[in-house]
Amino acid sequence: MKVFVDELNKYIDKEVTFSGFVDAIRDKKWVMFVILKDHTGRVQMTIEKSDENNAKLLGIMSNVTKDSTVLVTCKVVANEAVKLGGIELIPTNIEVTSKASELPFDYNNLEGVNIDTRLDYRWLDIRNDRNTLVRLVESTMQQGMREYLYKEGFVEIHSPKLIGTASESGSEVFEVKYFDRSAYLAQSPQFYKQMALAAGLDRVFEVGPVFRAENSNTNRHATEFTGFDLEFAHISSYEDVMSVEEDLLIAGLTKVKEVYGDRIKEVFGIDVVVPTKPFPRMDLQDLYRELNKLYGYTIPEHDIGDTNAETEKLIYKYAMEKYNSEFMFVTGYAATKRPFYHMRKDGALQGYDLIWRGVEITSGAQREHRYEELAKNAQEKGLTKDVEFYLQFFKYGCPPHGGFGIGLDRITMLLLGLPNLKETQFLFRGPNRLNP
Amino acid sequence: MKVFVDELNKYIDKEVTFSGFVDAIRDKKWVMFVILKDHTGRVQMTIEKSDENNAKLLGIMSNVTKDSTVLVTCKVVANEAVKLGGIELIPTNIEVTSKASELPFDYNNLEGVNIDTRLDYRWLDIRNDRNTLVRLVESTMQQGMREYLYKEGFVEIHSPKLIGTASESGSEVFEVKYFDRSAYLAQSPQFYKQMALAAGLDRVFEVGPVFRAENSNTNRHATEFTGFDLEFAHISSYEDVMSVEEDLLIAGLTKVKEVYGDRIKEVFGIDVVVPTKPFPRMDLQDLYRELNKLYGYTIPEHDIGDTNAETEKLIYKYAMEKYNSEFMFVTGYAATKRPFYHMRKDGALQGYDLIWRGVEITSGAQREHRYEELAKNAQEKGLTKDVEFYLQFFKYGCPPHGGFGIGLDRITMLLLGLPNLKETQFLFRGPNRLNP
Repeated sequence: MKVFVDELNKYIDKEVTFSGFVDAIRDKKWVMFVILKDHTGRVQMTIEKSDENNAKLLGIMSNVTKDSTVLVTCKVVANEAVKLGGIELIPTNIEVTSKASELPFDYNNLEGVNIDTRLDYRWLDIRNDRNTLVRLVESTMQQGMREYLYKEGFVEIHSPKLIGTASESGSEVFEVKYFDRSAYLAQSPQFYKQMALAAGLDRVFEVGPVFRAENSNTNRHATEFTGFDLEFAHISSYEDVMSVEEDLLIAGLTKVKEVYGDRIKEVFGIDVVVPTKPFPRMDLQDLYRELNKLYGYTIPEHDIGDTNAETEKLIYKYAMEKYNSEFMFVTGYAATKRPFYHMRKDGALQGYDLIWRGVEITSGAQREHRYEELAKNAQEKGLTKDVEFYLQFFKYGCPPHGGFGIGLDRITMLLLGLPNLKETQFLFRGPNRLNP
Repeated sequence: MKVFVDELNKYIDKEVTFSGFVDAIRDKKWVMFVILKDHTGRVQMTIEKSDENNAKLLGIMSNVTKDSTVLVTCKVVANEAVKLGGIELIPTNIEVTSKASELPFDYNNLEGVNIDTRLDYRWLDIRNDRNTLVRLVESTMQQGMREYLYKEGFVEIHSPKLIGTASESGSEVFEVKYFDRSAYLAQSPQFYKQMALAAGLDRVFEVGPVFRAENSNTNRHATEFTGFDLEFAHISSYEDVMSVEEDLLIAGLTKVKEVYGDRIKEVFGIDVVVPTKPFPRMDLQDLYRELNKLYGYTIPEHDIGDTNAETEKLIYKYAMEKYNSEFMFVTGYAATKRPFYHMRKDGALQGYDLIWRGVEITSGAQREHRYEELAKNAQEKGLTKDVEFYLQFFKYGCPPHGGFGIGLDRITMLLLGLPNLKETQFLFRGPNRLNP
């Protein structure tokens, strides 16, 4: 298997084959420096012109374009004078494994490059160091969260994305031509996560695509994104759900900080802050009062019982000032502002939102697991036929449970301070974007 | 968090709250035994009738139906006479958290229950011990494979399932109404895995849904299933790909054997065999000759250059007899029988199939990474406009690479000897099945 740049220091004075992209060629009078890179970093290859044996190598490299790929047989040499990690590669053989045509733009300098051009050539855009790091961080964040879930005995499920009815709310669902009938794309795995608990699996999670047929272009929305969803049974209240969400995020952020904390600081100028348990939590009414008192903010009539983008920004400000916390749980939302499957107790919603850096990243809740109550709540929201199949899950025994979902892209965006989902998702999907 | 059955032995003589499903109630003259269960096992709760304090508990339990859920405050007591793990729970309080209606069938005895009825009530079907175990094993297999990939520096990606063109082959693709135009559901993440390597991520994997609009009902096909796909750069040949696949499967099967080997043996009567490296490998022409010599088998004219279901069964027989191996790699397939993006060298396909227990579980290959060669191969297969976007990925430098995909459901099916995908997938999807 390939030796990576960040492993080369284990091979000092040894011969290795190294392969990577050609990042730059600096052709000096006495020497040619070639900077090679892979996803772990850059290394310098040095070809001395005074050495007659190098004539062939120099000939090969003089025909090579930037971003071509090469396979190099070389000796790894320690050299303090080399800025890139104090290591250089002294080649004895070079094979050009692919030759790059002239690039449509310089991905190292994306200022002034139109975002649509960047997305059209997303594979070049990702070669930019920042954008490479986004991908590595997102993967590592998931790894940290998964490792926590494995430890806690969560079972991974893969629920179907093709569904028979336009559930939850028919308006924002994509329709699929399914042989001689219609199917729909799942907007969330919510119902199936709960089904898995009714099936007795106790603790489940799913990481997969969710689809929203929203014809809107904001920096928070995409027609397809990756949901990180979990649900677990035998809880006492939504406090248990909040506790698991705290642990999950701590696990993810700890892993990211451990592996990429320094590089994130270097590239994005951002500190990865691992929060501590418990995150501060506050009732919505108390928050309205505090935000009014401190910042003169009054919630608009139509948002009473809920938060909006402006409130969320102020909650962040307040959480930082009062608790020095990037996170805050908000409870006490109005039942009318939340889905029918969130439990109510004496009319009070048994759920919460989590605000991180001024943006809502989750709605979590204890779910209503009692058939009669759930049917009643559905009816109140005017949902009948479309949720009939879902209600069945609760007829034959189902333990008390709760859960939440996080938009993976959204937390990556917030973690790295990215301006929009277009620069966050591996391949963004919006109303006007289906390619590549 | 909940105490699970398999953790109760840590709480002997302690008071705990235990919650679970009511599996059975045995109401004897002097005592009531209630069997409770969660996904880790069963435990006995004992209520002595001679104890007057138990009158209330007995009253509660006499109204409880099988499959209801309860929350029990109890003492954990060691009792050698108890068959279930030598432990019993002595309750001081019982709360019925959900009451089950009469079940439509007995999920402990599924013989004679129509498969469609089972799928209609899949959450009850999964409560069957065998079916619960299928879910746990599939999750654990993935965990083992992922842990190997994390260790090897693979980056997890989530590629879009909504795509702009009906790629690879238009015939088996689902069409989606996408605002004022059409989108399609991805048949595999193949092109995007490769794009990620062109983007410089070096090693990537994806676990997610793939969609096939095949209107056929066999035990191997579903319209939606979970693909476990990976792709990595800087390889020398498809031998590197085979090597990674060996390691991946060994890691997955090792984990499964470790965690569930005993339970699989008990419930399915199957030994989980962890293979050793290297798996035997054989050229297709040599195989034809051997299968003919040993079993009198001749490959039909139209399958020459390929294997078919019958060949695969014989290959298994041969691999077991000659190598005592459940696995066999087969190489030397005809280029005409494989996709255009598999590399050829002097006309020879640089790919393989892996046969496990008589079924092909992967086609892997070194991919063609050189733009001109790839364009030529595509044209030979009559692919032009639909793959134009894909060909672009190779214009600006792309390292040599290869990869493969495994149907997660398919390997779970083979591992546990299940008769079809309907009993393997969490929720099967076929031409006539979109619910629940």
